[in-house]
Amino acid sequence: MTVLDEIRLGRSRSRSELVRRTGLGRAIVGRRVGELIDRGLVTEGAAGPSTGGRPPRQLAFRATAGHLLVADLGATSIDVALTTLDGRILGHHDEPARIEDGPDACLDRVDALFDLLLAAAKDVPGRLWGVGIGVPGPVEFGSGRPISPPIMPGWDGYPIRERFAARYGAPVWVDNDVNLLALGEWRSGVAAGHDNVVVIKVGSGIGAGIISDGRLHRGAQGSAGDVGHIQVSDDPSVVCRCGNIGCLEAYAGGAALGRAGEAAGADGSSGRLALALDQSGTVTAEDVARAASFGDPVAVAMLQSAGARVGSMLASVVNFFNPSLIVIGGGVANSPDLFIAAIRDTVYRRSLPLATRDLRIAHSSLGGLAGVIGASAMVVDQLFARESIGRWLEAGYPAAITDLTLARAG
Amino acid sequence: MTVLDEIRLGRSRSRSELVRRTGLGRAIVGRRVGELIDRGLVTEGAAGPSTGGRPPRQLAFRATAGHLLVADLGATSIDVALTTLDGRILGHHDEPARIEDGPDACLDRVDALFDLLLAAAKDVPGRLWGVGIGVPGPVEFGSGRPISPPIMPGWDGYPIRERFAARYGAPVWVDNDVNLLALGEWRSGVAAGHDNVVVIKVGSGIGAGIISDGRLHRGAQGSAGDVGHIQVSDDPSVVCRCGNIGCLEAYAGGAALGRAGEAAGADGSSGRLALALDQSGTVTAEDVARAASFGDPVAVAMLQSAGARVGSMLASVVNFFNPSLIVIGGGVANSPDLFIAAIRDTVYRRSLPLATRDLRIAHSSLGGLAGVIGASAMVVDQLFARESIGRWLEAGYPAAITDLTLARAG
Repeated sequence: MTVLDEIRLGRSRSRSELVRRTGLGRAIVGRRVGELIDRGLVTEGAAGPSTGGRPPRQLAFRATAGHLLVADLGATSIDVALTTLDGRILGHHDEPARIEDGPDACLDRVDALFDLLLAAAKDVPGRLWGVGIGVPGPVEFGSGRPISPPIMPGWDGYPIRERFAARYGAPVWVDNDVNLLALGEWRSGVAAGHDNVVVIKVGSGIGAGIISDGRLHRGAQGSAGDVGHIQVSDDPSVVCRCGNIGCLEAYAGGAALGRAGEAAGADGSSGRLALALDQSGTVTAEDVARAASFGDPVAVAMLQSAGARVGSMLASVVNFFNPSLIVIGGGVANSPDLFIAAIRDTVYRRSLPLATRDLRIAHSSLGGLAGVIGASAMVVDQLFARESIGRWLEAGYPAAITDLTLARAG
Repeated sequence: MTVLDEIRLGRSRSRSELVRRTGLGRAIVGRRVGELIDRGLVTEGAAGPSTGGRPPRQLAFRATAGHLLVADLGATSIDVALTTLDGRILGHHDEPARIEDGPDACLDRVDALFDLLLAAAKDVPGRLWGVGIGVPGPVEFGSGRPISPPIMPGWDGYPIRERFAARYGAPVWVDNDVNLLALGEWRSGVAAGHDNVVVIKVGSGIGAGIISDGRLHRGAQGSAGDVGHIQVSDDPSVVCRCGNIGCLEAYAGGAALGRAGEAAGADGSSGRLALALDQSGTVTAEDVARAASFGDPVAVAMLQSAGARVGSMLASVVNFFNPSLIVIGGGVANSPDLFIAAIRDTVYRRSLPLATRDLRIAHSSLGGLAGVIGASAMVVDQLFARESIGRWLEAGYPAAITDLTLARAG
């Protein structure tokens, strides 16, 4: 728990608070704060209210010391943003895209959108300090490369970090989109203040981001949170794209809902879904959610059944992990309350009373912005993390950033 | 990551290593090490091999600065030990006991056994620095009290900490037995060096201890790891003692195995189990394991089926948590390899390839001592944790221990 982290995360707002919370001596704290002020990372405000002695001066992180460029690539979309060092969005753009078009097409487009954001911004603070990228598949966090991502043809092992580092001369971090969603909700959304959180994204597939005792839990190989392939049924007739039977994703993922909706449209059992099929030649999970919100009984039953499957998986997760909050996000979660109601019903019924006594289950609060806000938090956390500073110093990043080294001891 | 933790956990063995690993300045490290030596917590050995400059002096934790008393209470046993501050066992005793006899009977016996250990020890180092207690049920770690423990009648809310603190005038910590098993295996056993570990105890019930990114994960209410009540079947005919259907424990726990073995003995389908029933009037999980080790086909099938159920639960845990190691311990796990083989088979078949690529599944290595070794590690970790020092200072513990305050900044 460094002096800089204390200040930038808003935990300590004065030297006295720093001394009390870090256990460091007053002289050391004073010296570190002085260094951080000299380097432009911390500002000192007007004197606050006194409690007897010399009135304390408010310390604050100077989030405009530099800027960040971040992109959140989904299966069917690109979100980009220009942010301050504390994740405030100075410019944002999103558009449809197909991840399956491969890295060259997708990342060229990210470059172009970054250029547009920079050109459009009225006032870009400081230099570029880092780039953060989210992708819809497993990532080896240390190298920043996708590892056998199932829905990203052409991306396996692609050097995303090296590509952006070469263009921008700044450090780059890459993670999967669900971890970034979790980081975003935890830093700036509904999960703020919770130490143990599970964030579920129900999109085409299903994944989880995990906050364990106040840190993002990536697991031994970085594959933690791959809950879409947890078995929720013994029925041998439902085969998942991974080859196993009974995977959660094969029952409750967006792709599965779309297929079920298409069948209900084709056989006429749902008038609304038949209409959707007529109009666009296909039925998506969003169509099912919309039909359910109009009370279509077949679509309502589909969402309730999907919610119960997600809830059944989450009941196991609650017994194992004991979070204080579960956040539900992703496209399917933007459907009527009956989806989250079915999840709640199953979790509260199937988990142990002690684990659910104070458990909240809530919708994602940042909507489409959670990914880019999370990417921004990832970059700043890594910039100021002791382990990684060494790594990107060795990689020869510019002096503007290597100046930070002195701050690391704080 | 404090200077003292670096030294006592063997991560840094010299001032230079401390400087490199903590990022603190050389002068600060020198001052902290000096304080720790003055207080008798660290010793300085002979000069080590030089790498050019002044030869470094080896630093070591003085584990005999004091001693600890620890007890691990199981459903049917009491284990007590006298240890040094690094978990070395100076005296150990175990005997059968019944946790259902309630706190007065059980804890009076622990007192008597502690007295015996102290009397029998040839050389008890320093003063008593702390007491650690494990119990077979959920514990609110902050208060040290059992919370609605299912197999511990009379213990709900019992003030275990206050009871021992009053008698010994030393700080006391209490946790459930499975967390202590995990801490023991992680500090001194097969899990040493792993950052993400799940330790499963298959005894009368089934529970898990979780190491997440190098720390014991207790969860929001301290109920993490309660995997015995994860649903593994939809069959409505198998009702668990918790009232739900399909709980893992109702299929694969020791109590369930004993009941199944008793049925197979009574109806004559297994000759060996019939013999066990004849001899003692009941059949235990240990009887089933023994029969299986002699090749009794009914007992073999029971253990394989139980292993497959445990494996099915663990496959979900592996997808969610991505550990690098799973440790199997507890009474039922002391059975032939076919139990762990069935677990392995199911986990490797049902988990994602990336998550199992480097996953090991191993037997507990410390046997019956893991609990007391873990209890000792818990006490020392808490003694030197910044947060808790404040707490037990406020509680008025003696100067011998409060002297440690100065060490906390290190």
